[in-house]
Amino acid sequence: MSLKELAMKLEDFAKARDWEKYHSPRNLLLAMIGEVGELSEIFQWRGEVEKGLPNWEESEKEHLGEELSDVLLYLIRLADICGIDLSHAATKRLPKMPSNTHQID
Amino acid sequence: MSLKELAMKLEDFAKARDWEKYHSPRNLLLAMIGEVGELSEIFQWRGEVEKGLPNWEESEKEHLGEELSDVLLYLIRLADICGIDLSHAATKRLPKMPSNTHQID
Amino acid sequence: MSLKELAMKLEDFAKARDWEKYHSPRNLLLAMIGEVGELSEIFQWRGEVEKGLPNWEESEKEHLGEELSDVLLYLIRLADICGIDLSHAATKRLPKMPSNTHQID
Amino acid sequence: MSLKELAMKLEDFAKARDWEKYHSPRNLLLAMIGEVGELSEIFQWRGEVEKGLPNWEESEKEHLGEELSDVLLYLIRLADICGIDLSHAATKRLPKMPSNTHQID
Repeated sequence: MSLKELAMKLEDFAKARDWEKYHSPRNLLLAMIGEVGELSEIFQWRGEVEKGLPNWEESEKEHLGEELSDVLLYLIRLADICGIDLSHAATKRLPKMPSNTHQID
Repeated sequence: MSLKELAMKLEDFAKARDWEKYHSPRNLLLAMIGEVGELSEIFQWRGEVEKGLPNWEESEKEHLGEELSDVLLYLIRLADICGIDLSHAATKRLPKMPSNTHQID
Repeated sequence: MSLKELAMKLEDFAKARDWEKYHSPRNLLLAMIGEVGELSEIFQWRGEVEKGLPNWEESEKEHLGEELSDVLLYLIRLADICGIDLSHAATKRLPKMPSNTHQID
Repeated sequence: MSLKELAMKLEDFAKARDWEKYHSPRNLLLAMIGEVGELSEIFQWRGEVEKGLPNWEESEKEHLGEELSDVLLYLIRLADICGIDLSHAATKRLPKMPSNTHQID
């Protein structure tokens, strides 16, 4: 499913559940940050984690997929409510991908 | 561009710039949180913001699109490095969309 | 209780519960971010909130005090584990208090 | 300096600079999250970091102290604006310190 299709689905859900009144930009931003917190909790006591999560249980990966998705869905909804075409913005941003200015060698 | 295509582009960039050694799960998570901070800064002193950002300058919307994109790109890269199919996970998550348990009427 | 006393109490707790092995800088940072997420959830669906929280239930204020405290306690512990004297650093920082560069008039 | 003294200093600064109009609860929360993002950036590309930061430059530790302080100062200001006695709340919270429910053995 494309970012645009996900945005449309989220709009349908919000309408169907009468959530549109809650979906202001700052409400959605704080809701997204709540999900970022839940995502961080998954990683918090583990020390360094290897690529591909070699020793994780299937249920832990499932949970991780859910929290990553929750951040994504609120991010898409936030962009949509702000009138930002996220797919377009991300494609333009890609070649300028967050730089390595802070990287430590 | 689909989430999968964006993930592939990000992998190409990381390879081309020799950034793969930096792209561990927790490094990418913290980098994403850095971008969430920059996104928050855009909204921090404004009080409530209306849908569609009616009084924002074009340059401010441009900046917002960039910060939303930076969060998205790190989120996609984090999922990819963890071996999570984000598109699949988000599609499954959609009908269970973060509930309104915290909503205040 | 001063910041230094709180830091000492937290060290005692960590020792007594054999948590020191978990208390690495990045583990504590992610734990703090988890608490920032819980703090954000308290504010997420409310729209603008007035100073002094005039219409909040006593139990909601209690909950807010707990989440603010959890962020504080992890922040103090993180600083301590990093060998940073937070009280000294904050006192020095005070006159340079985060500037209003992003403020919108 | 105690938490209460820091809160009073922050109030004085806000008054002197006519910042009180900006210091609503959600504005301060988002400003704090902006600082959490800057704190995360310090740790983002480093992989695991050892207690005491043995290989960090003095200037890096200085920078870390500043970012930790910025989070602290906004947290104190947020609590104060909400009418929460942070010192009291934290002292009460201490024995129930965020549990190890998510800890991985």
